Amino acid sequence: MEIKVLENILGANEQIARKNRELLDKNKVFCINMMASPGAGKTSFVLQTIKALKGKLKIGVIEGDISSSIDAETVAKEGVPVVQINTGGECHLEAIQVQTALNSLPLADIDLLFIENVGNLVCPAEFNLGEHIKVIIASVPEGDDKPYKYPLMFNIMNVLVLNKTDLLPYVKFNVDNFVKTIKNINAGAEIFKVSCTTGDGISEWTKWLKSRIK
Amino acid sequence: MEIKVLENILGANEQIARKNRELLDKNKVFCINMMASPGAGKTSFVLQTIKALKGKLKIGVIEGDISSSIDAETVAKEGVPVVQINTGGECHLEAIQVQTALNSLPLADIDLLFIENVGNLVCPAEFNLGEHIKVIIASVPEGDDKPYKYPLMFNIMNVLVLNKTDLLPYVKFNVDNFVKTIKNINAGAEIFKVSCTTGDGISEWTKWLKSRIK
Repeated sequence: MEIKVLENILGANEQIARKNRELLDKNKVFCINMMASPGAGKTSFVLQTIKALKGKLKIGVIEGDISSSIDAETVAKEGVPVVQINTGGECHLEAIQVQTALNSLPLADIDLLFIENVGNLVCPAEFNLGEHIKVIIASVPEGDDKPYKYPLMFNIMNVLVLNKTDLLPYVKFNVDNFVKTIKNINAGAEIFKVSCTTGDGISEWTKWLKSRIK
Repeated sequence: MEIKVLENILGANEQIARKNRELLDKNKVFCINMMASPGAGKTSFVLQTIKALKGKLKIGVIEGDISSSIDAETVAKEGVPVVQINTGGECHLEAIQVQTALNSLPLADIDLLFIENVGNLVCPAEFNLGEHIKVIIASVPEGDDKPYKYPLMFNIMNVLVLNKTDLLPYVKFNVDNFVKTIKNINAGAEIFKVSCTTGDGISEWTKWLKSRIK
């Protein structure tokens, strides 16, 4: 008896993520899925990037939170289009929520779209949203041992941003060991060291980013 | 026709959590479920508590992580019994994992048991483990806006520990606003401000803790 083998049947989230990606590509929008612990500085990093690229790239933002719209309000003050997704308890964004958000953004007028995922180093790693790259923000006060504890997240990322370098004099954090650990887990990852408080390192990041967005 | 109404049918996790609690009570073990963002300082806080209570209370620790045993190794150096649970990807501990861990601890010889949950401000909030109190560690560099973003976690906790107060001079963090926010969300919560680097505030916490453990 013949056995039918069904191949490449994607889960619902992955199917919608691919549709999101098509829509983004059609509109020439480069999309970044930003993930981090609570308080690592995702919103500050988005704000610094918006300021650095003002007049050079048109930016849009999707803010994902369990509840509240604190971050969306902060970002909206910069005059960029923002959509807030409240997950109502869910610990990560899913592609279907992003699909709805994309439909209410002026995509033809956006070059670069940030998706700020729910603050969580675990669950968001398992859900593609249609983004072009995944960026993790780690922060100095969290300590240099996090990559070993959240291996999936550090495995799937394309870019690691180490934020709050201005706090290095006040905490125990070995930057060389941290970078070595990242390279062991994910040799292809780009690494940027920044301080969203002082602005240090932001220009290296935006230079690289512009080179990725043709 | 009579309709049977089934009341108080607990989910599997809650049933096992209650069994864990019975076992803890039988052995006179006071148990704390510690939850926090990655890097907020759960392990440092456990270490400080162990040092402060040496010779006064017998302490045990269950370490929950997705992978690695870094924290368990650190705590074991203090000469207390430790069990590591690796969830293998899961974003929170469940009561059944704690049940297994309890069976491999010398409960009759423990007064105070810390369970260090997986670093995550979302998912662990939904799973009771059998603990007597839930303690959240928040940390100064995470920022003072976290309670609004993770409402369930801040709602269900009994104790809030604000850690890394030694970094207050270097970051924007309004302690009064933070405390006011916590009181709005959870009026009954005990609040302690500590620095696990300098040891500041630890004695207030251990004094309160000893008063809870008869």
